Amino acid sequence: MKAHTEYLWFQTKQRRELVRITDEVAAAVAASGVKEGMALVSAMHITAGVFVNDDEPGLHGDIWEWLQRLAPEGPDYRHHQTGEDNGDAHLKSLLVHHEVVLPITAGRLDLGTWQQVFYAEFDGQRRKRVIVKVLGV
Amino acid sequence: MKAHTEYLWFQTKQRRELVRITDEVAAAVAASGVKEGMALVSAMHITAGVFVNDDEPGLHGDIWEWLQRLAPEGPDYRHHQTGEDNGDAHLKSLLVHHEVVLPITAGRLDLGTWQQVFYAEFDGQRRKRVIVKVLGV
Amino acid sequence: MKAHTEYLWFQTKQRRELVRITDEVAAAVAASGVKEGMALVSAMHITAGVFVNDDEPGLHGDIWEWLQRLAPEGPDYRHHQTGEDNGDAHLKSLLVHHEVVLPITAGRLDLGTWQQVFYAEFDGQRRKRVIVKVLGV
Repeated sequence: MKAHTEYLWFQTKQRRELVRITDEVAAAVAASGVKEGMALVSAMHITAGVFVNDDEPGLHGDIWEWLQRLAPEGPDYRHHQTGEDNGDAHLKSLLVHHEVVLPITAGRLDLGTWQQVFYAEFDGQRRKRVIVKVLGV
Repeated sequence: MKAHTEYLWFQTKQRRELVRITDEVAAAVAASGVKEGMALVSAMHITAGVFVNDDEPGLHGDIWEWLQRLAPEGPDYRHHQTGEDNGDAHLKSLLVHHEVVLPITAGRLDLGTWQQVFYAEFDGQRRKRVIVKVLGV
Repeated sequence: MKAHTEYLWFQTKQRRELVRITDEVAAAVAASGVKEGMALVSAMHITAGVFVNDDEPGLHGDIWEWLQRLAPEGPDYRHHQTGEDNGDAHLKSLLVHHEVVLPITAGRLDLGTWQQVFYAEFDGQRRKRVIVKVLGV
């Protein structure tokens, strides 16, 4: 049984940004030597997410509009009494979730044709990271 | 350590449909020979989901109404400029999530009394699939 | 390869409550002897959730208000025709998800500085439980 760990670092230019990380996760799987198993891809922050969906710019626009509607920015979060201004980023993280687990088959990520892995930054412009933990045989 | 993989295929009659798959996942766990471990159950599509909840028809009606309210159908998604008409299906997939990880104890799925596993089809009437990846001892 | 299982029991005083369980999960990881791997933390009920976010009381108030807005209480759920009154609790469970998978590195939970694990009770005041399944080397 093998386990392998990598950390992916991000510093987005914009406060909110989607970063495609499929290739980086695939490289971690290749480096692990795992043929059959799972890869956990998990943001190490409470204002970021990781999800799987389509790499289509129009859809990404739809996703941002949807996230702003369901978990809007605003001045009125109780959390802002601590001096923070990122209450919406916490709710967006809960909504899309902060981690995914991906299957590994025959030494490769076993994803569907259109499935791509994304890091979703909801409060960026500073250094943040994602752990990739590969486990299997 | 053991790893075992199965693919479950679906072609729903309706565009949106919930399919209970607890028995199929349990069969994959039995076939794996894994006594202690985890089963990843993950849709291989970006317009479908997998979740755990109650097998109660009234609740399923509530879930569909809720999904239509939070991630409504509509003609105005940017994604539809690609020729697609399933923008809502992508958002519904993000909302309920496309995968679950289930515990295995003493050779069986270790679920609570009322927990059932569902494949949630948001854009069906064509062949789609779910991977079941079992890992453990 | 090692596998280890613990069950955490809850009986909340209020119907809706967040319970921080990071220390209990960390203790299960320590007891497992796993150095590199994953810990699945999964509610065994369909009206509860498990999530990772900040342990800040103001934010927790924001989360409850948000959950009540997106998955409101109400008398009109179809599910209530069965005699239940917890339709909203099922939807809240779908929204935040009922499980997380956490990375283990060098024998410890490998979480970011502010990441804490929470059990989210949506229909409590009775005995309910969470399974912690640790897998790794």
